[in-house]
Amino acid sequence: MSNRQSSMARDIEATPRIVARQALELEEALERLVRRLRRESPDLVVTCARGSSAHAATFAKHLIERYVGLPVAEAAPSIASVYQRTLRLSGKLVLAISQSGNSDDLIAFASHAKGAGALTVAVTNETASPLAAACEFVLPVGAGPERSIAATKTFVATAAALLRLVCAWVEDPNLLNAVRRLPDRLALASRLDWSRASEVLSNSTRLATIGRGPTLGMVREAALKLKETCNLHTEAFSGAEFLHGPIALVRRNYPILLFIPTDAAAAGMRQLCSDLDAKGATLLIADTIATVGIALPVLPAEQPEADALCLLQSFYLMVVALGDRLGVDIDKPPHLQKITRTT
Amino acid sequence: MSNRQSSMARDIEATPRIVARQALELEEALERLVRRLRRESPDLVVTCARGSSAHAATFAKHLIERYVGLPVAEAAPSIASVYQRTLRLSGKLVLAISQSGNSDDLIAFASHAKGAGALTVAVTNETASPLAAACEFVLPVGAGPERSIAATKTFVATAAALLRLVCAWVEDPNLLNAVRRLPDRLALASRLDWSRASEVLSNSTRLATIGRGPTLGMVREAALKLKETCNLHTEAFSGAEFLHGPIALVRRNYPILLFIPTDAAAAGMRQLCSDLDAKGATLLIADTIATVGIALPVLPAEQPEADALCLLQSFYLMVVALGDRLGVDIDKPPHLQKITRTT
Repeated sequence: MSNRQSSMARDIEATPRIVARQALELEEALERLVRRLRRESPDLVVTCARGSSAHAATFAKHLIERYVGLPVAEAAPSIASVYQRTLRLSGKLVLAISQSGNSDDLIAFASHAKGAGALTVAVTNETASPLAAACEFVLPVGAGPERSIAATKTFVATAAALLRLVCAWVEDPNLLNAVRRLPDRLALASRLDWSRASEVLSNSTRLATIGRGPTLGMVREAALKLKETCNLHTEAFSGAEFLHGPIALVRRNYPILLFIPTDAAAAGMRQLCSDLDAKGATLLIADTIATVGIALPVLPAEQPEADALCLLQSFYLMVVALGDRLGVDIDKPPHLQKITRTT
Repeated sequence: MSNRQSSMARDIEATPRIVARQALELEEALERLVRRLRRESPDLVVTCARGSSAHAATFAKHLIERYVGLPVAEAAPSIASVYQRTLRLSGKLVLAISQSGNSDDLIAFASHAKGAGALTVAVTNETASPLAAACEFVLPVGAGPERSIAATKTFVATAAALLRLVCAWVEDPNLLNAVRRLPDRLALASRLDWSRASEVLSNSTRLATIGRGPTLGMVREAALKLKETCNLHTEAFSGAEFLHGPIALVRRNYPILLFIPTDAAAAGMRQLCSDLDAKGATLLIADTIATVGIALPVLPAEQPEADALCLLQSFYLMVVALGDRLGVDIDKPPHLQKITRTT
């Protein structure tokens, strides 16, 4: 059986269409939320999420800090769910992000935050979920039913919804244009051939993924996907963090997958590529102008955050092919259910 | 050559003494800072750190959210250093944490934050460093010169300084007592025999470390230490996060090191231990009452955050022994210098 007929592959292929349809579904909810944000002007955003959604939260942190200029904190949900402590969150914006809207710890955090006077927003694919009920606002991700256990289209759709939120909030013309073009760009990214990556990774037992700025959330998501579906021990790092210790792991032929952002962080990442190449690592580099290592094809640069999402779309399809090479069924990750409930 | 004579081993052995001496060194600086905190009462704390110091920041996040009730954000230093964006941080407390005080990205973030009206504090072992100069307040960690490249005593001393900060801030009698007893407890923890762990890990190529609440920062630090000194691919997770995907990695005999906190998070962690045991994982469990897996000896429970630090002290000494079993020189991690400068 080939993974090309898997639920995961069908989800990935549906993503561009889903993201296109999302515009309409989100419009009204976004308008109301942004009106409120302008009136209350919160000075802090707190994201609350687990798993793939936590990587969407990493993406949101970068987006909001970069374009809105507000600090973003990632919640430790246990503060509410285990320690029963309510934080001082009056007037702050809380984004609770969850595909299923069903994790008890996120619900507890959102409820505590609402009780403390925060403006609470559920970003979820299930608008009838307990998380949606616990929040004042709901942003429907609109990805439709996801049959694959490992999230892909809900991740991209969630990240796209967060991009739309920031876009509506700051009305940056480049962002607006990028959001409009995102479905077409995702479709183009689906056609890029990353088989060089699946070739290398089918002979690996562990690897590092490295990103920075808009690609940090993407490489975290990539690492989780390789763990879940292909039993590949993959850890994600920011380019800067990798130098503060983990680089000690690098040996000759050590495989590293790098997502180079199409913005000011590219220069440092390319310097890192050269350094890692000199140490003999096997580099898989998604970049518009890779000069060392194995170059993975990417779309021409347009707008950094949307470009980062397109890298992930190409990556997801590579995972399908990698599953075939490894002879694993990517629809059956061991020990996992579609909805993970944690306290 | 045995690692027992290494710089790293001597640093670890000096730690209890260093932490005892720190009380005096920090007293005045802490008093002035706490006076200011009471006057200005910031509603957000932002930590800014890399490497081991970032794990101390994780510990600080838990401490501050749990005992002070303020949300804590971990800064992405690139926002200032790469993207030149100044965040809205007026009146917020920024804790820039760095052993050497020499990383350009942290200095850039602290300078931007100070310019934006934040109350900036350098928590550093080098009070004459550029980071200390960039901040309004300096909390001297007082660890003395650290000769080992992999940080150990500066990590514990930094975490202890952050514990003292929260202690002075909230004046909780249990915390005060725990801080007072910490040097003696660290000395006792140094004598616990974790050789069962070094035995198992000397036959492993990769593992996961899992903690929650006060032990999350500790298992992150533990994972980095195993990467740096023993070339062991080790990734750290929160107990809840592990269930959202990474658990797919677990196979029979997969090694997992768990630090069980001595607080309300213990119940969930023990449930996780039972589940992982049922899946056939090889569990190394630091807990007062481990019922499955291999039990590592720990001190009787006293106060959760101080107890968590004691686990790490026992762990560090285990790493020295593990280095001997593996025949590696733990003072010579590949590709690393004592001071890592990143932009």
